[in-house]
Amino acid sequence: MARIDDLRKIATRLRIHSLRMTTAAGSGHPTTCLSAADLAACLFFGEMRWNPKDPHDPANDEFVLSKGHAAPLLWAVYAEAGVIPLQSLLDLRKITSVLEGHPTPRMPWVKAATGSLGQGLSVGAGMALAQRLDKSPARTFVLLGDGECAEGQVWEAAAAASYWKLRNLVAVVDVNRLGQSDPTMHQHDLQALRRKFAAFGWDAVVVDGHKIDRILAALAGAGKAGKPTAVLARTLKGKGVSFIADKNGWHGKPLKADELARALEELGCLPEVDAKRFIHKPRPFRKTKAVAAPDFPRTAYKEKTATRLAYGNALLSLAKADPAVVAIDGDVKNSTYADKFFEAFPARTFQSFIAEQNMVGVGIGLAAKGYVPFMATFAAFLTRAHDQVRMAAYSFANIKLCGSHVGVSIGEDGPSQMGLEDLAMFRAVPECVVLYPSDAVSAEAAVATAAAHKGMVYIRTTRPATPVLYAAGEVFPVGGSKVLGKRDGDQATIVAAGITVHEALKARAELEKTGVRVRVIDAYSVAPLDAATLGREIAETGGRAVVVEDHFAGGGLGEAVAAALAGKAALKHLCVRELPRSGKPDELLEMYGISASHIVRAVRELVAG
Amino acid sequence: MARIDDLRKIATRLRIHSLRMTTAAGSGHPTTCLSAADLAACLFFGEMRWNPKDPHDPANDEFVLSKGHAAPLLWAVYAEAGVIPLQSLLDLRKITSVLEGHPTPRMPWVKAATGSLGQGLSVGAGMALAQRLDKSPARTFVLLGDGECAEGQVWEAAAAASYWKLRNLVAVVDVNRLGQSDPTMHQHDLQALRRKFAAFGWDAVVVDGHKIDRILAALAGAGKAGKPTAVLARTLKGKGVSFIADKNGWHGKPLKADELARALEELGCLPEVDAKRFIHKPRPFRKTKAVAAPDFPRTAYKEKTATRLAYGNALLSLAKADPAVVAIDGDVKNSTYADKFFEAFPARTFQSFIAEQNMVGVGIGLAAKGYVPFMATFAAFLTRAHDQVRMAAYSFANIKLCGSHVGVSIGEDGPSQMGLEDLAMFRAVPECVVLYPSDAVSAEAAVATAAAHKGMVYIRTTRPATPVLYAAGEVFPVGGSKVLGKRDGDQATIVAAGITVHEALKARAELEKTGVRVRVIDAYSVAPLDAATLGREIAETGGRAVVVEDHFAGGGLGEAVAAALAGKAALKHLCVRELPRSGKPDELLEMYGISASHIVRAVRELVAG
Repeated sequence: MARIDDLRKIATRLRIHSLRMTTAAGSGHPTTCLSAADLAACLFFGEMRWNPKDPHDPANDEFVLSKGHAAPLLWAVYAEAGVIPLQSLLDLRKITSVLEGHPTPRMPWVKAATGSLGQGLSVGAGMALAQRLDKSPARTFVLLGDGECAEGQVWEAAAAASYWKLRNLVAVVDVNRLGQSDPTMHQHDLQALRRKFAAFGWDAVVVDGHKIDRILAALAGAGKAGKPTAVLARTLKGKGVSFIADKNGWHGKPLKADELARALEELGCLPEVDAKRFIHKPRPFRKTKAVAAPDFPRTAYKEKTATRLAYGNALLSLAKADPAVVAIDGDVKNSTYADKFFEAFPARTFQSFIAEQNMVGVGIGLAAKGYVPFMATFAAFLTRAHDQVRMAAYSFANIKLCGSHVGVSIGEDGPSQMGLEDLAMFRAVPECVVLYPSDAVSAEAAVATAAAHKGMVYIRTTRPATPVLYAAGEVFPVGGSKVLGKRDGDQATIVAAGITVHEALKARAELEKTGVRVRVIDAYSVAPLDAATLGREIAETGGRAVVVEDHFAGGGLGEAVAAALAGKAALKHLCVRELPRSGKPDELLEMYGISASHIVRAVRELVAG
Repeated sequence: MARIDDLRKIATRLRIHSLRMTTAAGSGHPTTCLSAADLAACLFFGEMRWNPKDPHDPANDEFVLSKGHAAPLLWAVYAEAGVIPLQSLLDLRKITSVLEGHPTPRMPWVKAATGSLGQGLSVGAGMALAQRLDKSPARTFVLLGDGECAEGQVWEAAAAASYWKLRNLVAVVDVNRLGQSDPTMHQHDLQALRRKFAAFGWDAVVVDGHKIDRILAALAGAGKAGKPTAVLARTLKGKGVSFIADKNGWHGKPLKADELARALEELGCLPEVDAKRFIHKPRPFRKTKAVAAPDFPRTAYKEKTATRLAYGNALLSLAKADPAVVAIDGDVKNSTYADKFFEAFPARTFQSFIAEQNMVGVGIGLAAKGYVPFMATFAAFLTRAHDQVRMAAYSFANIKLCGSHVGVSIGEDGPSQMGLEDLAMFRAVPECVVLYPSDAVSAEAAVATAAAHKGMVYIRTTRPATPVLYAAGEVFPVGGSKVLGKRDGDQATIVAAGITVHEALKARAELEKTGVRVRVIDAYSVAPLDAATLGREIAETGGRAVVVEDHFAGGGLGEAVAAALAGKAALKHLCVRELPRSGKPDELLEMYGISASHIVRAVRELVAG
């Protein structure tokens, strides 16, 4: 069969490219490219339908290289497909090249950055969901390594994909038996892996990953069982080169020049074959363009309302206005109030159960396909997805995260449920916008702002109800702040956000009684911080400021202000400095030093000088 | 059978206590206590062997309440066992009580904080490993909910426990069908859950979780198959009270006073039974006390050495000196250099494969049993275990973490592999010591310091080799810093750590040529920071300082210094401010503004300024 022979030739070309590229770069992971070369050839030039002229053609089958360290193989595929010049492969890992060590969307065919293992299946599930929402016939293929199947997120994704009946999702696992430092848990016991995927509700088949006909047959059967399909391919790491094949100790090592020469001798010269001819064009498919209203109507909040409730209300309003908005839940939607959206729009909302890593990964996938995913859980539990948030940043993903139940103000549920490190986590992400509303009006505005902003946005919401501070028309631009009750002669500035704005206002009233005048800044945009306003207002109040936040000391609002004003103000920083415990919200604010009475004391000390 | 009847009575008492406690507290999760009451009665008063007089008796079977929101049930168990007074139960969730909303080790019988779901099985696996190391006949029991089985970490732990052949580990899953906001993925399809545990190598049995005799029989069979055992118990959330049993919408809701009255009517009066009589005393077992040398011999490093390599060498030296030291790996030990320990002491080192959440959870379990676990992976991948690190803090766990491959200085592998947020993550943990050595000598010292310090320690190591700065005898206390090359008339201070100390020293030499004198501070103790020395030295240099770090802006060394010196110095902060890319280490230090040339420029601006 000519086709099988051609695919074999393409695979050999991919192997040769991968070896040459990594030797030229002086680093990289050639052996993991060699194990997967036949799989890649069969996927891109055998099974998948895609238009090499347009990475954003909605008719394209999508591909996620979950085993991101096989990046050279992926670049080789695109070179063979005519997407990038062959000679550009030798720029691998150069600072001037988009062919990075692990894939990032700087290369336009990459929809999500990979390289932190075990994340690709969630991203693929998100893309497959998007394709289903689009009513597209296209599918999503994810290439995993066997080593990364030790990551729990793979099983979160597997469970969700099965629950969501994603028959348009295909996982191909390159079971090359060898991890980085040790053989993998199951080595070549492919049945062990098959049992796991089957138990998680997948159609799982085992094939020889170096037999083109077997791979093609397995791929051709994908989805036939009405389930997501896992093709578990027995391969050899370093396949095709005798002295590295199936040998431990060759992870992440390029061949030296003489080794490369020997390897190329074994592989023979670059076989003549035009891979481009083998790409299956997709059936034309146009996505129905969803038209979004420019904004949604605002609520005239009057009564004390929790910002988390206002978030939920606003999310529903936004969802009505913009059909591209979707949501994923980690089984807390009745606490984050995302449930309103879920009830109104079951088709655009997805229950990921208690699996925050998968929730964020699925969001990255949906965002890559043009949807605007909102994901909310307790801020404390977003730490579970820190690595996924990190990779979302490298994916330049347009995702929106909401962390509810922040700080000691949640009260009796205790420290495990308190988000006290979330500002540090999101402030460390370059370009991530961090919004921390103090009342229902600003919470509603935060949702609108998040939707309008292109890129990652984090919204921090509070459990208890808080008084309404702003009129319904108030605007809250990214990078702004609100100066509350400013007068000439103010002696200090209190910088607060969220729940502490209300403590600061109480403190202000208390101080007023003894003739101490202060102004309060609601720093609702924690990142980017409104450094200009803070600098000006604090300078006007004698360079004296108290920053108060319901967050640990490291990486929160206090340090943001300190860094922004370095050298220009005397700051006192009130925050949670020890590991808190269960108690009533007011008791905890008091015990951990962030209540009105502590603010009063701090201002008095500053003013006294 | 009298015993079965007695256990049924105990279970009823546990139900009544749980309802009363949560109603008195006005919050909490009574229904999840009711579903698990029969299981808890059978565990603590039927199967487990434990000495209620001593939580630290090494003969005790250990228990982990992975479904931490069932805390009232656990407190009720200890009250029934005579460990705490019955009347103390009504103090649930009070700020003065150790009976918190979710378990923390403030209550001495709790060995690890729970409440972030899906973490307990890893902790239990760590305890079971410790029991095996101790050569103890004791076992570890973990009570999970079905909802949390959606968390990938459960499957990481399941895979590891099976790989480690932990027949002394028993998971009991309370399959009550209802999550917080929705029914669970599998509801009462217990066979679906059984297939998963079986596929992950466990002996998995399904029982009726409200039939005492069936539960006891299943528990009695645990471990007989030579594998870890999962008892999957079909239960009803709210079991025993008709109007809440098996009803959605009752998660995290205490009964109102009138509802409680109706519930107590259904349950009948508190049955007369002395639960204490049913506790099985353990067979006496004394743990052989391991004797540790006071310290380990230091290395006289001369040649350029990567701090990660020095970490690995030191870990091996420490392991030779202290038999309580153990290690867990995430399949990167040949990169973190923990492999030296693994090769020398296979019995005290554990391969957790690519599963960082489980790695940290197992470490918490080992630490709870008196071992000193060291866990190393790429700093970037420790973000995967952020939630576990958070829970380790609330567990007051004596664990040691090392993050290697930090910053853009790793070079060509690209952003997914660069630890650029780890300082923010660990600095936000109250009381966590963060050490960031710049050379092999300080890296070796960091390992000794970490071992000697009681509590969580994070060590940040660098990929490339760096010159040796210190003599072998140098000491590096927690909270200290090193002032390098200080002279009168210095015009500015450069604060650096790790790789940037070397850039700072290059900058110093460069500046010297043009007559600008600076001193360099090696802030190796990032937390706690040596604020006194920094303040003094910077004041001596005219209040001018440049802080330079291979880390993102938020939450790192720069903000730590800004916060420590708020208002007392003019700071310039050089750090990685955008999402980096692949390239050579030196090119990247230059591109992202943290190389010697950038430091020189920043100092010149400050001095001119």
